Amino acid sequence: MRVVVPFDGGRPKTRLAPDLDPGERREFAHAMLRDVLSALRAAGAAPELLATAPVDVDVPTTVDDRPLSEAVNAVLEAGPPVAVVMADLPLATPAAIERLLSADGEVVLVPGRGGGTNALVARHPDFRVDYHGVSVRDHREIARDLGVEPRTLDSYRLSTDVDERGDLPEVLLHGGEYSRRWLHDRGFRVESAEGRVRAVRGDGNGP
Amino acid sequence: MRVVVPFDGGRPKTRLAPDLDPGERREFAHAMLRDVLSALRAAGAAPELLATAPVDVDVPTTVDDRPLSEAVNAVLEAGPPVAVVMADLPLATPAAIERLLSADGEVVLVPGRGGGTNALVARHPDFRVDYHGVSVRDHREIARDLGVEPRTLDSYRLSTDVDERGDLPEVLLHGGEYSRRWLHDRGFRVESAEGRVRAVRGDGNGP
Repeated sequence: MRVVVPFDGGRPKTRLAPDLDPGERREFAHAMLRDVLSALRAAGAAPELLATAPVDVDVPTTVDDRPLSEAVNAVLEAGPPVAVVMADLPLATPAAIERLLSADGEVVLVPGRGGGTNALVARHPDFRVDYHGVSVRDHREIARDLGVEPRTLDSYRLSTDVDERGDLPEVLLHGGEYSRRWLHDRGFRVESAEGRVRAVRGDGNGP
Repeated sequence: MRVVVPFDGGRPKTRLAPDLDPGERREFAHAMLRDVLSALRAAGAAPELLATAPVDVDVPTTVDDRPLSEAVNAVLEAGPPVAVVMADLPLATPAAIERLLSADGEVVLVPGRGGGTNALVARHPDFRVDYHGVSVRDHREIARDLGVEPRTLDSYRLSTDVDERGDLPEVLLHGGEYSRRWLHDRGFRVESAEGRVRAVRGDGNGP
């Protein structure tokens, strides 16, 4: 099965702007990508990158600067089976990836926090994506319009995409080596607060 | 296996105060509890409530007004095996509960968002809880101090506890009947925003 990892090499992770400057956001996005690729390889997959611009990472890369949905649909049109795994899932483990790749179903979806679709497996030749808006709901409808009942994989590790400050504690507590160490080396640590813990930065650079 | 659901019948879900008034927060907490109990029963469990005050729900109830950790430890002291499942997990399904109750291990942990412990199974007689602070980290250490390597169950449904406004879209998109309908009947719906979707309330009561 083709395993495709879309990656925005341009201005990734803009919603982490309060905590990370543009160069740091790029570095952190790369660290998360490395964790995802590492989990995929350890699960026996041969990932391909689908990037908006060339990326300095040792993996076969297709550069396609169209919007995400169009670029992914070009891959899907080449024929199933295809897995699409987002690059901002630093909690991914080989075990979670194995569950995804071995899950039964013509369309398998992994919801992301806030209505997104963090990963999917398409075995139906006509399934296409639309990542705009509440994509997990749209992808369910797209599958049903093909007469396919979509399956949902129940994985905290794959449902945890990292976009905002509130996601950083998950990386510090449960993330892969590259991302966790990157945050740690920049002074981030987990701090107990009222209710949930937060990620704070101890090097004086904020937040 | 005893399956215990702790429930704060007093002033639950205070961090939802911007969106729900105290009476609504109590009602919503009850709706989530009903979804959890319903998933537990459908999975073949016979749940017991461990409540800070009497609760109007048809389930065997122990009232214990001590802090959460003390009350749960009193149950654990009575002997294993015990499962502890929090009441604010409205995404729980029978399948997710079955995975929890059948997971191997002397100590099985389900992390919550932000360092919590949303569910656990204790089969070791000396395992005790400490829900204060980064409890999932503490529970791992407590298990290791007993010579037990804790297992982690990878479930988005059980790792999604509902405490804050940002959690409400998960309930609207993936939640159980009682909680989803309760939010829907109060005018909440999912709205596409920049990035993740949000929950908005359309009845003029805010936010």
